Amino acid sequence: MKSLTEHLWFEVPHRRGFVNITDTVARLVKKSGVKEGLCLVNAMHITASVFINDNESGLLHDYETWLERLAPEKPHSQYRHNGGEDNADAHLKRTIMGREVVVAITEGKLDFGPWEQIFYGEFDGKRRKRAMVKIIGE
Amino acid sequence: MKSLTEHLWFEVPHRRGFVNITDTVARLVKKSGVKEGLCLVNAMHITASVFINDNESGLLHDYETWLERLAPEKPHSQYRHNGGEDNADAHLKRTIMGREVVVAITEGKLDFGPWEQIFYGEFDGKRRKRAMVKIIGE
Amino acid sequence: MKSLTEHLWFEVPHRRGFVNITDTVARLVKKSGVKEGLCLVNAMHITASVFINDNESGLLHDYETWLERLAPEKPHSQYRHNGGEDNADAHLKRTIMGREVVVAITEGKLDFGPWEQIFYGEFDGKRRKRAMVKIIGE
Repeated sequence: MKSLTEHLWFEVPHRRGFVNITDTVARLVKKSGVKEGLCLVNAMHITASVFINDNESGLLHDYETWLERLAPEKPHSQYRHNGGEDNADAHLKRTIMGREVVVAITEGKLDFGPWEQIFYGEFDGKRRKRAMVKIIGE
Repeated sequence: MKSLTEHLWFEVPHRRGFVNITDTVARLVKKSGVKEGLCLVNAMHITASVFINDNESGLLHDYETWLERLAPEKPHSQYRHNGGEDNADAHLKRTIMGREVVVAITEGKLDFGPWEQIFYGEFDGKRRKRAMVKIIGE
Repeated sequence: MKSLTEHLWFEVPHRRGFVNITDTVARLVKKSGVKEGLCLVNAMHITASVFINDNESGLLHDYETWLERLAPEKPHSQYRHNGGEDNADAHLKRTIMGREVVVAITEGKLDFGPWEQIFYGEFDGKRRKRAMVKIIGE
């Protein structure tokens, strides 16, 4: 069994933002030498997400609006977590978007449908944060 | 390490619908010959979901109503993604339901609790779409 | 390839509650002898969740309030699933929180970010229920 572990670093300049990491993950799959296996990509911080959807700017804007409706940032006082913090909404937004994705590796490549792209979703940015890529297989 | 890769095809006749794929996945686990491992099942399209829940018609109806409340289809104009599309709500509904499931394989079988069933959830149907089954283990 | 399969049992005394299972899962990783691999933890019941977030009591209270807003328990009559049941909301709440997590194992340990903790989320308690831990790797 082969395995590869890498951390990806981000510093999103705003509180919220989306970063397309598909090419980076694809390069790591190649580097791993794994032909058949699984690729886990997860946020290592609990106010961020890794998810798969469409690389379309209108949709990414819709996500921002929709998440703000389901888990509004303000007023900060509505959340008990915000005693010493102001990021409770980021924990909830990431819960909807998901912590992680698991992608099949087939014949040495990410085995994707036509529009699947991997995103890092930041909900409490302006600081350095990490995601993990873990690949196992043969 | 053994592995198996198969695509499942769907053409749901309505915009939204749920298809129970548990027996199909169970057959593929048997076909793979894997006794101990993991089974990934994921939608390959970004307006569809693979999820695990109860095979109960009342609950599936509740999902439809509830998703329509959290991410309404109409008016289409409320979403920027709908410039050239009308399926922004399908991307959001699939986000709540999830892209994928990972199921343990133990002694050659899906290792399930008493009521767990795997569903393909379609939110933008009336076309041919795929899900993937990837099995790895020994 | 090595593998380990264990079931964790819970009997949460209230309808809803969160149980931190991080230390238990970490012990099972050690017991498995796996140095590089993946650890799947999933609820085996469809009204419960396994998720990763912060072990902070204010946040756990915020989850309770927020889930009750997105998928209210009452009136029970609002859900068709509640013909013979009263737990439709529990199926929906678990859908938002997620069925499972997949965690990387690196150098024999759960490869976690600084605040990641694994929780069992119960949404229809007062009975014995299970979660599964499945570890594969080398």
